[in-house]
Amino acid sequence: MPEASLSPARAFGLVCGDLPAGPLNTIGDVAGVTVGHKTLTAGDLRTGFTAIKPHQGNLFREKLVAAVDVINGFGKSAGLIQVEELGTLETPILLTNTFGVGTGLHALIKRAIAENPEIGRETGTVNPVVMECNDGHLSDIQALALTEADALFALQSTAPHFEQGSVGAGTGMSAFGFKGGIGSASRVFKLDERTFTLGALVLANFGNPGDLILPDGRKPHPKGSGSDPERGSVIIVLATDAPLESRQLKRVARRSGAGLARLGAYYGNGSGDIALAFSTAHKAAHFEERDFISREVLNEDRIDVLFKAAAETTQEAVLNSMISSPAMHGRGRSNRQSLADWLRGGR
Amino acid sequence: MPEASLSPARAFGLVCGDLPAGPLNTIGDVAGVTVGHKTLTAGDLRTGFTAIKPHQGNLFREKLVAAVDVINGFGKSAGLIQVEELGTLETPILLTNTFGVGTGLHALIKRAIAENPEIGRETGTVNPVVMECNDGHLSDIQALALTEADALFALQSTAPHFEQGSVGAGTGMSAFGFKGGIGSASRVFKLDERTFTLGALVLANFGNPGDLILPDGRKPHPKGSGSDPERGSVIIVLATDAPLESRQLKRVARRSGAGLARLGAYYGNGSGDIALAFSTAHKAAHFEERDFISREVLNEDRIDVLFKAAAETTQEAVLNSMISSPAMHGRGRSNRQSLADWLRGGR
Amino acid sequence: MPEASLSPARAFGLVCGDLPAGPLNTIGDVAGVTVGHKTLTAGDLRTGFTAIKPHQGNLFREKLVAAVDVINGFGKSAGLIQVEELGTLETPILLTNTFGVGTGLHALIKRAIAENPEIGRETGTVNPVVMECNDGHLSDIQALALTEADALFALQSTAPHFEQGSVGAGTGMSAFGFKGGIGSASRVFKLDERTFTLGALVLANFGNPGDLILPDGRKPHPKGSGSDPERGSVIIVLATDAPLESRQLKRVARRSGAGLARLGAYYGNGSGDIALAFSTAHKAAHFEERDFISREVLNEDRIDVLFKAAAETTQEAVLNSMISSPAMHGRGRSNRQSLADWLRGGR
Amino acid sequence: MPEASLSPARAFGLVCGDLPAGPLNTIGDVAGVTVGHKTLTAGDLRTGFTAIKPHQGNLFREKLVAAVDVINGFGKSAGLIQVEELGTLETPILLTNTFGVGTGLHALIKRAIAENPEIGRETGTVNPVVMECNDGHLSDIQALALTEADALFALQSTAPHFEQGSVGAGTGMSAFGFKGGIGSASRVFKLDERTFTLGALVLANFGNPGDLILPDGRKPHPKGSGSDPERGSVIIVLATDAPLESRQLKRVARRSGAGLARLGAYYGNGSGDIALAFSTAHKAAHFEERDFISREVLNEDRIDVLFKAAAETTQEAVLNSMISSPAMHGRGRSNRQSLADWLRGGR
Repeated sequence: MPEASLSPARAFGLVCGDLPAGPLNTIGDVAGVTVGHKTLTAGDLRTGFTAIKPHQGNLFREKLVAAVDVINGFGKSAGLIQVEELGTLETPILLTNTFGVGTGLHALIKRAIAENPEIGRETGTVNPVVMECNDGHLSDIQALALTEADALFALQSTAPHFEQGSVGAGTGMSAFGFKGGIGSASRVFKLDERTFTLGALVLANFGNPGDLILPDGRKPHPKGSGSDPERGSVIIVLATDAPLESRQLKRVARRSGAGLARLGAYYGNGSGDIALAFSTAHKAAHFEERDFISREVLNEDRIDVLFKAAAETTQEAVLNSMISSPAMHGRGRSNRQSLADWLRGGR
Repeated sequence: MPEASLSPARAFGLVCGDLPAGPLNTIGDVAGVTVGHKTLTAGDLRTGFTAIKPHQGNLFREKLVAAVDVINGFGKSAGLIQVEELGTLETPILLTNTFGVGTGLHALIKRAIAENPEIGRETGTVNPVVMECNDGHLSDIQALALTEADALFALQSTAPHFEQGSVGAGTGMSAFGFKGGIGSASRVFKLDERTFTLGALVLANFGNPGDLILPDGRKPHPKGSGSDPERGSVIIVLATDAPLESRQLKRVARRSGAGLARLGAYYGNGSGDIALAFSTAHKAAHFEERDFISREVLNEDRIDVLFKAAAETTQEAVLNSMISSPAMHGRGRSNRQSLADWLRGGR
Repeated sequence: MPEASLSPARAFGLVCGDLPAGPLNTIGDVAGVTVGHKTLTAGDLRTGFTAIKPHQGNLFREKLVAAVDVINGFGKSAGLIQVEELGTLETPILLTNTFGVGTGLHALIKRAIAENPEIGRETGTVNPVVMECNDGHLSDIQALALTEADALFALQSTAPHFEQGSVGAGTGMSAFGFKGGIGSASRVFKLDERTFTLGALVLANFGNPGDLILPDGRKPHPKGSGSDPERGSVIIVLATDAPLESRQLKRVARRSGAGLARLGAYYGNGSGDIALAFSTAHKAAHFEERDFISREVLNEDRIDVLFKAAAETTQEAVLNSMISSPAMHGRGRSNRQSLADWLRGGR
Repeated sequence: MPEASLSPARAFGLVCGDLPAGPLNTIGDVAGVTVGHKTLTAGDLRTGFTAIKPHQGNLFREKLVAAVDVINGFGKSAGLIQVEELGTLETPILLTNTFGVGTGLHALIKRAIAENPEIGRETGTVNPVVMECNDGHLSDIQALALTEADALFALQSTAPHFEQGSVGAGTGMSAFGFKGGIGSASRVFKLDERTFTLGALVLANFGNPGDLILPDGRKPHPKGSGSDPERGSVIIVLATDAPLESRQLKRVARRSGAGLARLGAYYGNGSGDIALAFSTAHKAAHFEERDFISREVLNEDRIDVLFKAAAETTQEAVLNSMISSPAMHGRGRSNRQSLADWLRGGR
């Protein structure tokens, strides 16, 4: 097993669970998965796009097995109904603010057409996946400021190494009354004498001030923060190189909810909590000539390690998103304190 | 009971079921529900928007109880996850082509903000509902030609009376190898000595050539039509003035699938078949001060008449969509014959 | 392709769809699938058990891939939640009356323990699947007359050839105001140059008098029959030798609802309409040593023929159940006419 | 608000969350809800029945609104499909071991018929709800030792005050490698200036040794305990006197999973984790004459307090089940240590 890397949370001694982390301790540990950002912070804007490429080829022609678990459906993400029905993912995933979904759809559609001119002509259409949280507390979400060029920038700048915190879609997000954002973590485990990885990337924008519980039992509360009803959300993207079928991935996705709960969350009414999981192990050809395809699938009795990894990485990714985010001033007089400052200041 | 009006299907002697129709025999029979279109037919375009206003007030502030049933999820409609979770509808519904969803989202968001400037600021965001079928057979869907102004035009031109057939979102649609489009029908029934109405509006773009079965047992087949695998979809919107809770509406929505099956459909793999049902009986205030609200709900033992009405109106609405649509030439050499011509020519 | 066998429905010229039937035109055409009955008709009893063996080995040790679609959940069937979660079937299936479920569970548990003494000791428990309809109209269901020995008799007497109509669990069932019961049908199709089969077995106990529509458009109505609200149900078991994963089988199961709708049904409120589908193509070992298993799965783009077969076999199996059932007198003054008599008498 | 009562967990200083508990700090705080047990400990048996009466009248004639959330469906509970479809509960709830489900069904059916002789004759059948965990580690589950008389004893001995720990269905259960069993807790909160209660009762038989996390961060590990893959389950029954519709109760039920996760659980593959919630606020008449019924329902924006209460009571109820259970020797050489002993011994 590779030595666990130091994550933002681990730098403060916060460890979630006991499975070993991958070398980057991010979703980038899953071979082929890359992440990119486009950040907008001008004026009253604190927003952006984060792009996740599940593999580096043409996803429309080589789809991945995927699944969704809707933990709490108070959300406006697009593309999930088809993932649920067919168990496949055929575009990169864009994360953004709630009102950026339409722009993200256009960007992914045009990109897919550019790569596959037969879309909507000789073959069917394409199912773009865009997931969202509401960054309206810190950002002027009514401005609908994000452009298709912004989405393409995020898509074009993906890499296995990427920033966490207040970047891309995470720029204006909040969590438990602190600054939230983009966070990631990974776990490695052995099956069939091979090493596999499960990585999580979260867009963390959920949780009431005062509800956060750290793995060591401390309960950080941002100073002066009230207790507005939660209007946030959290998006969790899970990637693994282990071969799972979509039903199994749906079960894994559901365990990300356990990670959220360990942080003190209870999936508040106003929070759109959605987990999407995909496996990079097999590629399903869009123009498949064969009637039957041979695939490896996980023995169901061995799935617990992936459940555990989903819970642990989700929990750690949220902490990483918060600790990586400095305090921020946003639109009007809004602001969010940093969990890192709280941790540095003790309590 | 009012006398059943003549629908396009009834003009050819085709009657679906035995419940009486409303005066218009469209979804416009449900008080307050209006429909409008914007049609684009220039050059290679055969597309548009159809707008359904569930009531004539501010839907964000006065939401309706609603539910979704995903009959087959090979589709890209937006906004359905939140309807499923919360059981409410808070924008008008837009129907359009698959690649028009993003534009429809922007139009609904901006319209909602204009009416409710507190969205995304003092209150949460808004969940726009846009549903779609792929009109790529007849129209140049890659052009992404629809604009927000087109969507607003459809929204502004709604009325209880509206055209059926190749108009609005239905302009470029196909069904069972014939020309498809927008269709509607209604049924009336008595409960508690009051008359209630259930209306359906469909965007019909589904079914393989040769599979269509008429209520009289005839099986119309368009001449010279091959048997490509189905790439279409069908969207069904059901409205009723009877007071149902969302669980009950979901059960009603599911019965629209029975109406499709009676036409010979089997919910083909490539067809995104989605039904959304709403009730106009109660308005749920966005800024509700009370902790508890008193509501009338249907005695579950009386629900069968709504199930029957959902199946019958869906079946008839699809026939109406086809019979109202003349033959059409589309992009390239594509074309679709009219079921009305087949019916006139006998067989 | 084998020549289509004559089914009870076909003897009256009633054909459902256009796919060719298998040699038996029953679920027995799927290699390894057998069916057995135990019928009780003494006194006021009109009830029994029907057993379906998905394969002839030890199902607990060699599970099959399976899935469930709940079309309308007004039913008391047992074991379905685990089939949904794990996508596997590990006992034969018992069909019976609503109050026979507990007895069926005991019989399947004891049989599984006898074959696998490690159950509940060295390994986990077992998930028996028992599905039901209410035969209370014709039978004294309050008697709870069925015994574990009756269930075992049905299990022990299974064969590829089996009776249809008023036998086993079907003994006291009703459909559309006529006598219902056990019916079956099959379809064959080619994939990858091999011939595959999909078979359906139904326990038909649903439908209001007057709603039945024959494939030729006729609408048989039993004489003197009222229109009580539906209190019946229908169970559909689908078997195929094509290799499908559970998500695909669930999609196939859903299409049995299209077959019901073509008969005039709309999944009435009081009807527990449940479809379970399994594939005999792969056996999943209970004590699987390997972490990963290699499996063939169907190319999703080829699934429509199974959808069509599910709709057609369900429709035909229901007709076969009715036509195979002579008129019956039951408890009190209850009785049901035979659809076969109606067909003979013409109308 | 009433003063919080001392629960077994609170006696050790373990507090879950910050909402105040009800006077009994059990599900018995919800007016009308009573619980009874039948315990079998002869020889190799460590098993029983626990009965929950949601109200003290005739539940078949006066049903309650209810809902189910299947957190992980590796379980054999019966009756849940109909609760999901209709949103009502019409019998008391029985908890027992996995192989006691059939006996529990028979007991509930006979009891319902005795109270309502029209069942299965002049009216439909009845949907008995029996939920289960596998106590095979400590008990001889193959003996199928429980009788209908045992179930009736539990039903007849219910009271607002009841024992927790190794009693009734909880007798032979295990949790996190310790002795598990029956546990309960409650929370009170104000809505509309009235005080409402939410109570949880759990049958705790889940969790791997070493995974348990106490609210104070300690991680108790039973001495000498291995790490077998989880074969347990957990059943959570939630009761409230607040008026919620079934969709809302389903959302509340889902939050019990957050309570489990805070204890260190991740809903292991082999664990059937199922939550059922009901509201005592309204009674739905079986023989309802009216077509529409007027009901109070919760303003959705006020639901978070119930979410929080569901998570907190589930977490505390599990701890109470463990702390109330002394160490136990079971069949063969099996045994389970007590969490109470661990807590007394410190660490």
